[in-house]
Amino acid sequence: MTVQAIDFEFSFHLPTLIEFGYGKASRLGERLLQLGVNRVFLVTDKGVESAGLLNELTGSLQSQGIQFDIYTDVEPDPSLETIDRGAEVFKTKPYDCIVAVGGGSPIDAAKGIRVVASNGGSIGDYAGVNRIPVAPAIPLIAVPTTSGTGSEVTMFGVYSDWHNNVKVTVTSQHMAPTIALVDPKLTMSLPAKMTAASGIDALAHGIETFFSVRSRPASDALAMEAIATVHANLRRAVHDGSDIEARIGMSHGSLLAGMAFNNGFLGLTHAIGSALSGHCHVPHGIAIGLLLPQVVAFNTPARPDKAAKIAELLGIEANQIENRAEEVAASIAQLVKDIGLPTRLREVDVPEEKLPDIAKDSFKSGMMKFNPRQPAQQEVLELLRRAF
Amino acid sequence: MTVQAIDFEFSFHLPTLIEFGYGKASRLGERLLQLGVNRVFLVTDKGVESAGLLNELTGSLQSQGIQFDIYTDVEPDPSLETIDRGAEVFKTKPYDCIVAVGGGSPIDAAKGIRVVASNGGSIGDYAGVNRIPVAPAIPLIAVPTTSGTGSEVTMFGVYSDWHNNVKVTVTSQHMAPTIALVDPKLTMSLPAKMTAASGIDALAHGIETFFSVRSRPASDALAMEAIATVHANLRRAVHDGSDIEARIGMSHGSLLAGMAFNNGFLGLTHAIGSALSGHCHVPHGIAIGLLLPQVVAFNTPARPDKAAKIAELLGIEANQIENRAEEVAASIAQLVKDIGLPTRLREVDVPEEKLPDIAKDSFKSGMMKFNPRQPAQQEVLELLRRAF
Repeated sequence: MTVQAIDFEFSFHLPTLIEFGYGKASRLGERLLQLGVNRVFLVTDKGVESAGLLNELTGSLQSQGIQFDIYTDVEPDPSLETIDRGAEVFKTKPYDCIVAVGGGSPIDAAKGIRVVASNGGSIGDYAGVNRIPVAPAIPLIAVPTTSGTGSEVTMFGVYSDWHNNVKVTVTSQHMAPTIALVDPKLTMSLPAKMTAASGIDALAHGIETFFSVRSRPASDALAMEAIATVHANLRRAVHDGSDIEARIGMSHGSLLAGMAFNNGFLGLTHAIGSALSGHCHVPHGIAIGLLLPQVVAFNTPARPDKAAKIAELLGIEANQIENRAEEVAASIAQLVKDIGLPTRLREVDVPEEKLPDIAKDSFKSGMMKFNPRQPAQQEVLELLRRAF
Repeated sequence: MTVQAIDFEFSFHLPTLIEFGYGKASRLGERLLQLGVNRVFLVTDKGVESAGLLNELTGSLQSQGIQFDIYTDVEPDPSLETIDRGAEVFKTKPYDCIVAVGGGSPIDAAKGIRVVASNGGSIGDYAGVNRIPVAPAIPLIAVPTTSGTGSEVTMFGVYSDWHNNVKVTVTSQHMAPTIALVDPKLTMSLPAKMTAASGIDALAHGIETFFSVRSRPASDALAMEAIATVHANLRRAVHDGSDIEARIGMSHGSLLAGMAFNNGFLGLTHAIGSALSGHCHVPHGIAIGLLLPQVVAFNTPARPDKAAKIAELLGIEANQIENRAEEVAASIAQLVKDIGLPTRLREVDVPEEKLPDIAKDSFKSGMMKFNPRQPAQQEVLELLRRAF
């Protein structure tokens, strides 16, 4: 897939230092000491706290004499107000580091809190692309406890604007964490349903980036590795959560997908998914699982070459090579079913009469323009009806 | 090549923002204005200046009212003293940006000058890994005019210590350029011999990283893309320098290789190459071309799986698949010959009686330990004799 036309232009940025390893989180305190950190603002949520995932991390901080406060007031799909409130609390003490522990919600919240604390205003002021003037001075360490969002390495933060029922995205290099400390051990107790929902999101990140009109050989290389790695491990991790190899594979695959989509961007699955979650509060990963097979089927005629490559990465047999591309959507639908996720919108209480509004609001997403095939609103509606 | 053992650990860092595109260098002034730059210290060498490669760049600075001085006192394989002297000159005016234009020598020089200017002392003080305490505050923009070193995105600087006839390497994230502005147009006038020498270096970066014991799926993915891209374009770029597509391919392949080896590191070819250049002043790319086929032959038994994959990337026919791995060294030797580089050490006036010292000093290189097969000194000497 070498691109060699004179109009071949791209940019690539991945400023976050990635440190990956099973059990690494237990050395958080030593790592922060190297950075000269004295007082940590630890952003997480109540689920992470009650699952006991903080114990090793806080123990490590204590053993190194690093002070910390734990901030748990982050809800799933955090609102703009949550971020601004967090920044207020952050400013009450001389914290010199933020550590985010959790899934996409606490990590995205911490990204926003750090930016508001250093730039003032409200996180909503920075919605859009490259609108954050000042690089935050203090480090942000992202410690994922799920394997899916890739938020630990991306420059994006997604927040809920419940007044307008939409997701707001902030995109800036100043959002990217300083360090992604990826420890698969923290995902060992993730329930099967959340493993499935976050894992299908990781797969979608790889696939959407690979299909994206902004994909480039460097993002393609990472996306292909991500697709193969997630596919090789997702069923295993869902069916046996104690399978350490599968957990390591999922943490790694999800990270690779984040590295890829930070540079290649996403597409139609996430555009519709955003509207679906905004209207009907469908959790992100579940929305993605419902939509991904339909979007892949929709995109395949536009990029049969890429669909064929995805088929190969998904292990679709070579003797079906003639129509490999056509097999991709079915293969993903089967995967969604195998890992126990809903396969129909009706199963998650989406009212059929809402579909036209969801189709309409899909076009509010900045990700729509990266999709390789631009749909009419009517085509999105038909796609939603097929998924209903 | 999915790795899934519990001891699977890695780090990955690529902090440089990459901006790639044909003709992009002519917009340097606008880009620096966005960064708030007023006065540029432009580090280059006399060859770049006399080839007229600065004209578009300086014109762009002038048109945006950005002041600059041009510093050309960088020799090939710059010495430690050159860096320290450059830092002295840098400090005579309130420069707020360094722009490096050239091959590896001016870019490595600029990296070192920036570090010495912000940390004091001499660049030799920072030899080794992670020994630079302070992150430089001013931006460094690297603008390559060759396609080979990858220095525009790496955290390495290599300097000549002529007192001890060795190369000194400084490794630190604080060495990495802020922005790599990669414009293949600047390579259009690169002579065939330099295209060949720098291009074989890029291929070696891809191959050595792929073989490295520190390689990981993310570096492998980039290295594989680099190997395929350089292989597809190197002969074309050497034989017809006006072939824009081939020039774009080489700039891109060289960049991908730099992205890869910044994270997977190099190996035996560069370890011996460093000693060979240190003892006999053989230009780096030529030394690499002389050694790479022999090292690949040496490494193949240790990693036949990786050798087979390299063979595939080099387009070695599938009907030879049984002994594909064994074909790699011969294929690279043929490439070195086809692009007009020396194929024997005797051709570049290396005295045979120096080979034992070269073999011995290869072990001074920090890159030796990343090679997948650890040679005895006698084995390196035999390898050099085969290349003689």
